[in-house]
Amino acid sequence: MLTIKRLDLDDARMLIDGARAKAEEIGVPMAIAVTDESCNLIAFERMDGSKPPGTQFAIDKAFTATGTWKGTHELREACQPGQPAYGITASHGGRMVVLTGGLPIVVEGNVVGGIGVSSGSPDQDLAVAEAGIAALFGTT
Amino acid sequence: MLTIKRLDLDDARMLIDGARAKAEEIGVPMAIAVTDESCNLIAFERMDGSKPPGTQFAIDKAFTATGTWKGTHELREACQPGQPAYGITASHGGRMVVLTGGLPIVVEGNVVGGIGVSSGSPDQDLAVAEAGIAALFGTT
Amino acid sequence: MLTIKRLDLDDARMLIDGARAKAEEIGVPMAIAVTDESCNLIAFERMDGSKPPGTQFAIDKAFTATGTWKGTHELREACQPGQPAYGITASHGGRMVVLTGGLPIVVEGNVVGGIGVSSGSPDQDLAVAEAGIAALFGTT
Amino acid sequence: MLTIKRLDLDDARMLIDGARAKAEEIGVPMAIAVTDESCNLIAFERMDGSKPPGTQFAIDKAFTATGTWKGTHELREACQPGQPAYGITASHGGRMVVLTGGLPIVVEGNVVGGIGVSSGSPDQDLAVAEAGIAALFGTT
Repeated sequence: MLTIKRLDLDDARMLIDGARAKAEEIGVPMAIAVTDESCNLIAFERMDGSKPPGTQFAIDKAFTATGTWKGTHELREACQPGQPAYGITASHGGRMVVLTGGLPIVVEGNVVGGIGVSSGSPDQDLAVAEAGIAALFGTT
Repeated sequence: MLTIKRLDLDDARMLIDGARAKAEEIGVPMAIAVTDESCNLIAFERMDGSKPPGTQFAIDKAFTATGTWKGTHELREACQPGQPAYGITASHGGRMVVLTGGLPIVVEGNVVGGIGVSSGSPDQDLAVAEAGIAALFGTT
Repeated sequence: MLTIKRLDLDDARMLIDGARAKAEEIGVPMAIAVTDESCNLIAFERMDGSKPPGTQFAIDKAFTATGTWKGTHELREACQPGQPAYGITASHGGRMVVLTGGLPIVVEGNVVGGIGVSSGSPDQDLAVAEAGIAALFGTT
Repeated sequence: MLTIKRLDLDDARMLIDGARAKAEEIGVPMAIAVTDESCNLIAFERMDGSKPPGTQFAIDKAFTATGTWKGTHELREACQPGQPAYGITASHGGRMVVLTGGLPIVVEGNVVGGIGVSSGSPDQDLAVAEAGIAALFGTT
């Protein structure tokens, strides 16, 4: 029998609250998603004024980061033409996204979930995702 | 140009907080989704211990209630064999669900969004959705 | 080599204009779609205030009526449990809809396209679709 | 509660009429789509003689321009191999298209919808989309 470590809803809220605080600080409304270790959605918020496709992008970034155990931006090199992961962006019905802004959440070496942020620039999305994780781990 | 009224994120949070409070009171963990007037997701929370398909059910109940301007349970009779709405459960890629637990949110005669709740019994899902709306309108 | 008779864009506009006039007359905003004989969309209009899922329903009703050479309401009996067409509502990714409001357009015995209307009651949808066809054939 | 500005059907018709006039002027039949601020279709016309996939392309160009707040051609550079938006063409079930011919429609700094045109060369598609917007704003 396995015992799985997984983000709970309070964790997800800390992630989203920390991310949203950063998004407000930089003045960019964001869509923010948190997935569990099985890549399923735990919580989601779309800030007023964010772009419509941000919903799917945020959820898919969290999905991708959780599922690959990597930041989505780290996958970009590997999925270029000629590289080993070429084509993954079309897999899973297009849900594997290599856009910056998805991060896995790691506790004692285990991926326990992920966060995905969308609607700003790549740097902004990443900064907001990192702020969410910092809030969870009390390092802000 | 049209001027559309839409739930904002604070409204969505009030809906979810009110629903979650009711779910805790009755001791049934729920998945809770809020959509805007165009049926797009604004916010979502899955309480610890709720059933895995509750995520999609909650989102689709909110989608259906918002889009039909009816509680999802009100559609059940009309989509039975021989009735006028027979077959809608297979439309929209299966997203039109007639399970109890989805309610439109109406302000001054306009549908401004919807709430969908899943993971309990039909009565429990409906009670939790109603509690969310009561919290939004300050009638709890 | 085949020579195919097909609605042109002017025909489609007459259909939509006639349907919209009827919808305005009865005071129910509708989504209205016209497809060609191959079931592909020629023209579409969503009247202000119609329900969000009306878009897909209208397009799919036109698709279904054109493809089956029948009014969508005529299919309802045949797709009931135990009947020969049982299950078609789940085919074509859910695009075969048997909701009232889709009609084929027949010229000299050939289906040259179809019209689909959604957002009102079954009777309203059908009346608006019929008004579109009457406008095309100059019988209003 | 949010108050959203959205194109109405009259606006959509002005956009399509202006675009179609330009398409007729240059002698290239086009598919023309208009979406609202939530990326949902308001109106569509396929001119006689345009290419079959133009329907989906036009609708998806309007979807993409509305959702990204950018002309679809502006996305092309960013989604090349090695660039930040690499892979978005496979997201949203393939609906994010970076082909020239989609433009957002901006009123007082807010995206209120979009137009997508397909079936000609990139330059022709863009010119026809621009003509639609010029007709809406009375600048033709």
